[in-house]
Amino acid sequence: MSVAHTVLASTNTGLAHFTQAPEPKKIHWLIEKGLHFKNHPLAQSHLGQGKTLALIFFNPSLRTRLSSHKAAMHLGLTVMSLNANEGWQLEFEEEVIMNSDRAEHVKEAAQVISQYADIIGIRSFPTLTNQEKDYADQVLNKFTQYASVPIISLESAIRHPLQSLADLMTINTFKTTPNPKIVLTWAPHPKALPQAVANSFAEWVLASGAELTIANPSGYDLAPEFRQGAIQCHDQAQAFADADFVYAKNWSSFEYYGQNLPVEQDWQITPEKMAWTNDAYFMHCLPVRRNVVVADAVLDSSKSLVIEQANHRTFAMQAVLHEILQHV
Amino acid sequence: MSVAHTVLASTNTGLAHFTQAPEPKKIHWLIEKGLHFKNHPLAQSHLGQGKTLALIFFNPSLRTRLSSHKAAMHLGLTVMSLNANEGWQLEFEEEVIMNSDRAEHVKEAAQVISQYADIIGIRSFPTLTNQEKDYADQVLNKFTQYASVPIISLESAIRHPLQSLADLMTINTFKTTPNPKIVLTWAPHPKALPQAVANSFAEWVLASGAELTIANPSGYDLAPEFRQGAIQCHDQAQAFADADFVYAKNWSSFEYYGQNLPVEQDWQITPEKMAWTNDAYFMHCLPVRRNVVVADAVLDSSKSLVIEQANHRTFAMQAVLHEILQHV
Amino acid sequence: MSVAHTVLASTNTGLAHFTQAPEPKKIHWLIEKGLHFKNHPLAQSHLGQGKTLALIFFNPSLRTRLSSHKAAMHLGLTVMSLNANEGWQLEFEEEVIMNSDRAEHVKEAAQVISQYADIIGIRSFPTLTNQEKDYADQVLNKFTQYASVPIISLESAIRHPLQSLADLMTINTFKTTPNPKIVLTWAPHPKALPQAVANSFAEWVLASGAELTIANPSGYDLAPEFRQGAIQCHDQAQAFADADFVYAKNWSSFEYYGQNLPVEQDWQITPEKMAWTNDAYFMHCLPVRRNVVVADAVLDSSKSLVIEQANHRTFAMQAVLHEILQHV
Repeated sequence: MSVAHTVLASTNTGLAHFTQAPEPKKIHWLIEKGLHFKNHPLAQSHLGQGKTLALIFFNPSLRTRLSSHKAAMHLGLTVMSLNANEGWQLEFEEEVIMNSDRAEHVKEAAQVISQYADIIGIRSFPTLTNQEKDYADQVLNKFTQYASVPIISLESAIRHPLQSLADLMTINTFKTTPNPKIVLTWAPHPKALPQAVANSFAEWVLASGAELTIANPSGYDLAPEFRQGAIQCHDQAQAFADADFVYAKNWSSFEYYGQNLPVEQDWQITPEKMAWTNDAYFMHCLPVRRNVVVADAVLDSSKSLVIEQANHRTFAMQAVLHEILQHV
Repeated sequence: MSVAHTVLASTNTGLAHFTQAPEPKKIHWLIEKGLHFKNHPLAQSHLGQGKTLALIFFNPSLRTRLSSHKAAMHLGLTVMSLNANEGWQLEFEEEVIMNSDRAEHVKEAAQVISQYADIIGIRSFPTLTNQEKDYADQVLNKFTQYASVPIISLESAIRHPLQSLADLMTINTFKTTPNPKIVLTWAPHPKALPQAVANSFAEWVLASGAELTIANPSGYDLAPEFRQGAIQCHDQAQAFADADFVYAKNWSSFEYYGQNLPVEQDWQITPEKMAWTNDAYFMHCLPVRRNVVVADAVLDSSKSLVIEQANHRTFAMQAVLHEILQHV
Repeated sequence: MSVAHTVLASTNTGLAHFTQAPEPKKIHWLIEKGLHFKNHPLAQSHLGQGKTLALIFFNPSLRTRLSSHKAAMHLGLTVMSLNANEGWQLEFEEEVIMNSDRAEHVKEAAQVISQYADIIGIRSFPTLTNQEKDYADQVLNKFTQYASVPIISLESAIRHPLQSLADLMTINTFKTTPNPKIVLTWAPHPKALPQAVANSFAEWVLASGAELTIANPSGYDLAPEFRQGAIQCHDQAQAFADADFVYAKNWSSFEYYGQNLPVEQDWQITPEKMAWTNDAYFMHCLPVRRNVVVADAVLDSSKSLVIEQANHRTFAMQAVLHEILQHV
C-alpha cells in the first residue's frame, strides 16, 4: 500500500489531508464522524458560514453534485457549481506555447478559483485510452499542486474516495460480525467504464484492515497497486461462497487498457448466485444497468443497500468538509 | 372531472397533496395563501431551513427556475438545480435489459434524489409524437411512484399546475365581479407546442367553480377530459363577446396529435378583437411571440396582465412549498 | 469622454448608478469601498438577506460567475444563475413579427426577470462581425431599458467595468508613487477577441484622472471614444520605457472590425521587454495564453499581479452590489 494514495482531499498550504492512504484509525474515525452527522446533520451548521465550496465538474454528476450540495448546506457553506466542460478548455502541460484551443492554464485556473473558494471539489474522468496519463491523475494532481486551498476529489481518473467512505459507512452499519466477508465482483456492462470505483473500494477496504476478495474475469485484474493485499480469484462462485457483502461493479480492462474484453461466462449478479452467499447484502455505487449488471430481483430485494449507499454519500462528504473546515 | 388529476404535488409516503383535482375550497385556499405570501414573502423564512428542494429540468426553464428559487429562498430552503438532459439518460420502462444508452432507471434515480432532497420538482415536456405515452405522463408519474419525498410538477407532458394557480391568483386580483367571463383562446404559433398550459388552465378554472369558454379552430379541441364542463366554440368573435379575461395560448392539435394544422382565419389577438370584449384583461403565460400570438398594442396595453402573472408564479410556488413543508 | 458611458450598473426606476462615466471622486470612492470589503468581507452580511441576484450569462464565465457569487454571499444575497444560451433565443428588435426561432422578446424577458430578481447581472459578448450593432451594446441596453430593477454589466459587447474596477483596486494597492506610469499594451492571440476589457480599462484609468499610454500595432487602435485622452503609440519599446504597470491584453481590430490582422513584430510580453520598464508590475485580466500573450517567466514572476486582480473581482462586485443595495 505504500504507493497507494487515497487522494480524498489535499492541499499545498501546509494542511495535509489524506494525501497518503489513511491509516486504519483515521478511516474508522471518518466512518464514525459520517455516521454521527447522519444522526445530527445540523449539529455544526454555523461552521462554514461565510465560506464557499466550489464544485468543478469536468464530467457529469448527479449523486456527487446533490450530496455535496446537501452536505455543504448542513455545514453552512455556500456552494458554487461549475460545469467545466462547457466552453472552458484547460491546458495541463508545462512550458507549452498555448496557441491551440486551450484558453487557460491549470496554473492560473487553480489559483484563481482559490481566490473565490475556501474548498474546491474536482471531478474528472479518465481518457481510458492512455493508461500512463490516466494513472498520473493529472487533472486532480495539477489542481492540488497549484491551488492554495484544499482540494477534494469528487472522483478522479483513478479513484472515487468519497464513494468508498460512504461504502464503508454502509458496511459498518449493516455488518453483524466484526470481520464480514467482503467481495468485490466485476459485472458486465455495454460500455467501457473507469476503474476508479473499484480501485478506491479495494484501497479503502484493505486500508481499513479488513479482508477483501476480488473476483473478475481473466484480463480484468485491477492495477497491481490497488489489488495488492486482496484475495484475488477469477471464479465468481468461489468468491461468493460465505460472502456477507457482494459489491458489484463493472470496470474496463487495466491490462488491455480501457478495453471491454469478451467474457465467456455471464457475470451478472442473479438471485441464483446470491444464493451461494451467506445471505449477503448487495452493494453498487449506482447508476446501475438493470438486468445487465444485476437482476431486478437482486436490486429490488430487501438485501440491496444501494439506496443507503447513496444516502451515505451526503454524510461522507460532510465528514470530509468538517475535517477540512476545522483547519482552514 | 373524475379522471382529471391535477398533479401539482404528490407523494407516496402517506401525504397526499393535490393528486386529485383540488376541490373548490382547496383552490381558493391556495389562492389566498399565495396572495398572502405576495404581501409577506418572508413571513415563514425559517420553515425550510436545513431542508433542500431539488429542481430537475428535463427541459429548459426560465420563469419556473427563477420563481421556484425565489419562493424557496423566501421559505429558507436550499435549492439544488439539475439540468437532466445533459448526459443523463433515464430508463422508464419496467423489467428491461438496460443495454442501450440509458444508464440509470427512474426507480433508482427517484429514490436516490429522495436521499438528498426533501422536496423534488420535475419539469418534463411531451414528445408530441406519441399521444398515449404523453398522456400517461410517464416521467412525472414514475418519479411520483418511486420517490420517497413529495414531488412538484414544474410542468409535465400534459399539465402546468403552478402556472394555473398563478393565473387564478391573477384573475382573483383583477376581477371586479364575482363571476367574470373567462375565455381561453387558441392563438397562432410557428411551432407545435404542448397542450399543458391550456389543459391545466381549463382544469383549474373549472375546478374552482368558475365558468370557462374555450375558443379554438376546428381540429384543435383539447383532450375531452380537460375541456369537459367548458363552453366550447370555434368562433373567436362569439367567445370574446362580453369577456372579462382573455387568456391566449397556442397549442398543437390533440386530435391530429402534435400537429400544427392549417387554420383559415387569423386567430392572433388584436386590438380590434379585444374591442369585442367587456374591456377585458389580456393574459398569457409567456414566453409569447409578438405579432404572431398577440399584437404589440394588446401586449403593451394597460390591460395586459402577463407580467403580473409571471410575478404570481413565485407566490404560487411558495404557497405549494409551504403546504408541503407543513407536513414533512 | 462625453459619449463614453461606463454602464456599470443602471436602472430605469429612478435610481441612476454610473450610467455616465463615473467622476474621479466616485471612482476613488468605489476603489476604497472595494478594498474595505477585502478586509471586512462579512461586515454587511445581512444587507441583502431576502433579496436575489440573477446572473444571466449569454456567454461562458468562470471568474465573473464565481466572484459574483462570492460577493453576493458576503452581502447575504441569494444568487440565481442562468446560462441563457441554452434553448432561449431572445428577440431584441422592436415591432417585429416573431415567427423565427426567437421565442421571447427582451421586453418581456427583462420585465419578467425583474419580478424574480432584485438586481440583474448580464453577460453578453459582441458578434465581432457587426461594429454598429456591437457598439450599440444592444443586449445590455435593452435589458437596462426594460428591466424594473438595477442592471449590472458582467461584461458587455464593448465594456467590462467590473474588471476595470478590480484593476484600479490592484494598481491602487501596488503603486508606490502618486502618479505611476500605466501602459496598456496589445499582445498576440490566435483568436479574434472583443475590445471590451481594453475599452473599459482605458475609460476607467482616464476617468480616474490618471495618465494612460496605449501601445498597439497599427490597425489595432481602439475606438476613438475610448482612446481619446490617452497617449497613443505603435511602438512597444517606447511605451514600456519607465512604465510602472504593464497591462497586456489582446483585442481584435476596431478599424478592420473584428479581424485578426497580421502583425510584423512580436508583441508578446517577455522578460527582455519588461527590462525596459521601471521594474513594472505585469497585469492581465485572465484567462491568458502562456507563451503567446506573455512568457512564462513574466507571468510566474513576483511582479505578476494577475491572481490579485482576480481576487479583487470579488470585492469590486461587492462594492457595486453594496452601492445598489443601499438604494433598493
